[in-house]
Amino acid sequence: MTGQFITFEGIDGSGKTTQISHLADALRDAGHEVITTREPGGSPGAEEIRSLVLEGDPDRWSAETEILLFTAARRDHLERTILPALATGKIVLCDRFADSTRMYQGLSRGDLRAIVDQLHTIMIGREPDLTILIDMDPATGLARAKSRATSEERFEDFGQALQEQMRKGFLSLAQEFPDRFRKINGDQPIEDVSRDICETVLAHLA
Amino acid sequence: MTGQFITFEGIDGSGKTTQISHLADALRDAGHEVITTREPGGSPGAEEIRSLVLEGDPDRWSAETEILLFTAARRDHLERTILPALATGKIVLCDRFADSTRMYQGLSRGDLRAIVDQLHTIMIGREPDLTILIDMDPATGLARAKSRATSEERFEDFGQALQEQMRKGFLSLAQEFPDRFRKINGDQPIEDVSRDICETVLAHLA
Repeated sequence: MTGQFITFEGIDGSGKTTQISHLADALRDAGHEVITTREPGGSPGAEEIRSLVLEGDPDRWSAETEILLFTAARRDHLERTILPALATGKIVLCDRFADSTRMYQGLSRGDLRAIVDQLHTIMIGREPDLTILIDMDPATGLARAKSRATSEERFEDFGQALQEQMRKGFLSLAQEFPDRFRKINGDQPIEDVSRDICETVLAHLA
Repeated sequence: MTGQFITFEGIDGSGKTTQISHLADALRDAGHEVITTREPGGSPGAEEIRSLVLEGDPDRWSAETEILLFTAARRDHLERTILPALATGKIVLCDRFADSTRMYQGLSRGDLRAIVDQLHTIMIGREPDLTILIDMDPATGLARAKSRATSEERFEDFGQALQEQMRKGFLSLAQEFPDRFRKINGDQPIEDVSRDICETVLAHLA
């Protein structure tokens, strides 16, 4: 018995957290065992690394050090949370995974994308079984993200031009990994987005 | 003008800290600009990662996650402390560097040595100009290490069999990198060890 590892990707404000919660309810109603988790974080050690990366001066870490810290957090999350849940047949719904590192750290400089990929191959080696990309208008996403108050603003405070770039980047990742990516229209009413995601995931599980 | 990057390696209790202090004094007396630093740590960010790795339950991180955290700390230390000092012509004396990770993390399982080396190639890429290996009887080193009280005991509390293995491991690293390794007899009186190190380093600088 082996579970299913399903990740959610998309720009900030695309509704991943809400949609994961709806999907978890729907899957549990259908009789599945489900855990929900997130990155960076998702295990006690990885949450400590998350704090180290996301708090404080934005320049405190170089992009390269940040990639190493994210990869350390991911390794811990995988070992302590994701793989044990999959081994007992659970469905793991994860808010962001390696695709977010490929996008956010790999976007500005091509050589960093290469580094992200090399570290992933050596230290993680696992891709999701299914990745739900909630694709939406960046203006809407940005407005939603700004309406939230968090202490971890620094990854969300880069304006609409960056959100446009991110949207394009996620769409190009979906083309790079067509077997596991499914694009969902995030500009619909929330309940329609939920329905599309639920149908997509149930089709995948069937 | 470019400085010199000199590292100190050896089993716990081999006197690295004392010897670095003596050498720094001697080099400053000879007119050199010197900084002393240590790993894990050596920059504000790397010291925070050090605390994360060395404190708490010994099983809190897997060997693989630990290697990633050490490499993250090393990258930060290199960028923020070592390279800037070398760029202004200083001599950098560093208590442990990548050779310690090769030894301590890479020792028990061969595939971990391969991982340590791959991460080093991708993310660090820099070797010391000179590495002083203080080689000594493990029984003496262990007695010295045990006489110190620290809150970071977990890497030092593995007994004499491990210290024997470490000694052999460092000697084999010295054979692997003969161009930069210099072996010093650490079983002599401290002042004789200091004299040998000072002569070796001055010969290297000349």
